[in-house]
Amino acid sequence: MQSSANKKHAYTRTLDFKTGCVEMMHGSGGRAMAQLIDQLFMTAFDNDFLRQMNDQASFTSSGGRMVMATDSHVITPLFFPGGDIGCLSVHGTINDVVMAGAKPLYLSAGFILEEGLPLGDLKRIVESMAAAARVIPVPIITGDTKVVERGSGDGVFITTTGIGMIPENVFISSERAKPGDNILISGTIGDHGIAVMLAREDFAFQSSLESDTASLHDLVSVMVEAVPGIHVLRDPTRGGVAAALNEIAQQSGTGMMLFEERIPVKPAVSAACEFLGFDPMYVANEGKLIAVCAPEDTDKLLDTMRAHPLGCNAAVIGEIIADSHSFVQMKTRFGGTHVVDWLSGDQLPRIC
Amino acid sequence: MQSSANKKHAYTRTLDFKTGCVEMMHGSGGRAMAQLIDQLFMTAFDNDFLRQMNDQASFTSSGGRMVMATDSHVITPLFFPGGDIGCLSVHGTINDVVMAGAKPLYLSAGFILEEGLPLGDLKRIVESMAAAARVIPVPIITGDTKVVERGSGDGVFITTTGIGMIPENVFISSERAKPGDNILISGTIGDHGIAVMLAREDFAFQSSLESDTASLHDLVSVMVEAVPGIHVLRDPTRGGVAAALNEIAQQSGTGMMLFEERIPVKPAVSAACEFLGFDPMYVANEGKLIAVCAPEDTDKLLDTMRAHPLGCNAAVIGEIIADSHSFVQMKTRFGGTHVVDWLSGDQLPRIC
Repeated sequence: MQSSANKKHAYTRTLDFKTGCVEMMHGSGGRAMAQLIDQLFMTAFDNDFLRQMNDQASFTSSGGRMVMATDSHVITPLFFPGGDIGCLSVHGTINDVVMAGAKPLYLSAGFILEEGLPLGDLKRIVESMAAAARVIPVPIITGDTKVVERGSGDGVFITTTGIGMIPENVFISSERAKPGDNILISGTIGDHGIAVMLAREDFAFQSSLESDTASLHDLVSVMVEAVPGIHVLRDPTRGGVAAALNEIAQQSGTGMMLFEERIPVKPAVSAACEFLGFDPMYVANEGKLIAVCAPEDTDKLLDTMRAHPLGCNAAVIGEIIADSHSFVQMKTRFGGTHVVDWLSGDQLPRIC
Repeated sequence: MQSSANKKHAYTRTLDFKTGCVEMMHGSGGRAMAQLIDQLFMTAFDNDFLRQMNDQASFTSSGGRMVMATDSHVITPLFFPGGDIGCLSVHGTINDVVMAGAKPLYLSAGFILEEGLPLGDLKRIVESMAAAARVIPVPIITGDTKVVERGSGDGVFITTTGIGMIPENVFISSERAKPGDNILISGTIGDHGIAVMLAREDFAFQSSLESDTASLHDLVSVMVEAVPGIHVLRDPTRGGVAAALNEIAQQSGTGMMLFEERIPVKPAVSAACEFLGFDPMYVANEGKLIAVCAPEDTDKLLDTMRAHPLGCNAAVIGEIIADSHSFVQMKTRFGGTHVVDWLSGDQLPRIC
């Protein structure tokens, strides 16, 4: 724990704006990115909405509380088992919108295309986006297209922004985690990251593993209906479950105790992680969510999740504890305890 | 005119999705881009909001009519006389929001950063964004950051999305242009494009020309207060005044007659255009607007614009005429008439 605390400390130093450079780890979902956001964007844009520190920002219109979320998608390869950058760019932003318990209403999309991208590929991507949006359903109501020279982009980047409306009785936010609360996950972890990784490289072993990319609007809708008092929802994308839990711990000023044997991981993901030297806790998911709720709501929430196709492998993986250091700890299969720290480097760049 | 009609026809053929490639002209704001939008995005995303065909889409919440607009910014160089990609990314999207006559409310920002970008440059850009947003004022309430490998991006790309509220008595839309209406421009044209072009290349002559990049929220606010019945507002960015007017003509099913000698152009822009072989009608602006209004409202609107710092060089540059071909025509200084066609190639790539 001490070494971990020291490591934490090493990353809290002030960024060097005079001679430093943006590095890959600034986009990794780990601490270096949090540091960049904190020391640069939070400082410059300073307002109450950004300080909510959720993946979406809620605001009040005279018609009710609404939510706006944005995500830029730069995944490589553009097509991967189980999905592509098109459907991913819808799922990614919609999932950020619904993590506030909101009903998604509208999407916008900004495309940055590289000269030389085959139009057929672009068509596949755009149709995949349209299909993903249609099943929710949420219309893509406005957009923009830019083209950059060959070598100044990488095929296509897609930035989507979503707007949603929050039901009156729902108040979901990461700072609401309280000691005694339970931590639930909606299914197996690491599927997306490993599927994309295996699609990217020529590995010695074949796998039928697919990304879990999916829109969580319907799962969230039934969860919120069953338990309007859910405290926290968060989708563990870049940086994996480890990053999402550390964000919740930090924002709520609590600690966590996880139980390794309760965390659902597909055997194929476990095997690939062992082979590649990865920890599934740090691998990205694109169709999973973490929920935090009061102990008395846990059974009902878990049953509701398990009754939904996207939550059939849901599990209670740990609990919120009092800890002024906001450490996320894990009891291992072998009885030991270790800290599940923020990712400090970049395990899998361009995963979403 | 005949040759122009033939040229128009040549661009309406179906895109080749099997073997064709994205080319620079697909991002130029000209017809090739309109074709791509029509044949791909409009078809795939098909909904009433997209069919409004304005730079923003308005939707109704129980609190009133709101507007959402998005723009990806890929300008090169990142810093240019009069501005940078940071303030531009705020102005560009806010201007799209206010072209509906709306009061801008919120912004989101998605950053795609290239590995190796100096942090100092990023800081300058982000602070410039923050300053531009503060003077409106509109908060940047949520965002996202991605990093791509060196050579897979170009410094920084910024996608911003804006939300605004439309006053109850305002109904501004490009299809509302009617024969007899007057066409107004808020000031000199081509300043942004030429300033960026001169910053990009080593030209033989020096110039003190600056981009006109500015947020038009306040100008629009006083215009809408003076003349709530304005028919059309549009900011002539990529593709210049020519593209914006052709869009209005097409969407309203009208033609236009412009008067060359009334169009305000700075001598430095004229000189640079002559030297470079450009036509200022096709050069981008980032702080100008085109307004279309009824003849009886014209004097009041023009006076209101001229009384505002961002409209002091405003002028009536032409009128809407009946024309089933939707041609934008111009009476030249020398008494001739020619068609101001859509840009067919790409005059100035990556201008915004």
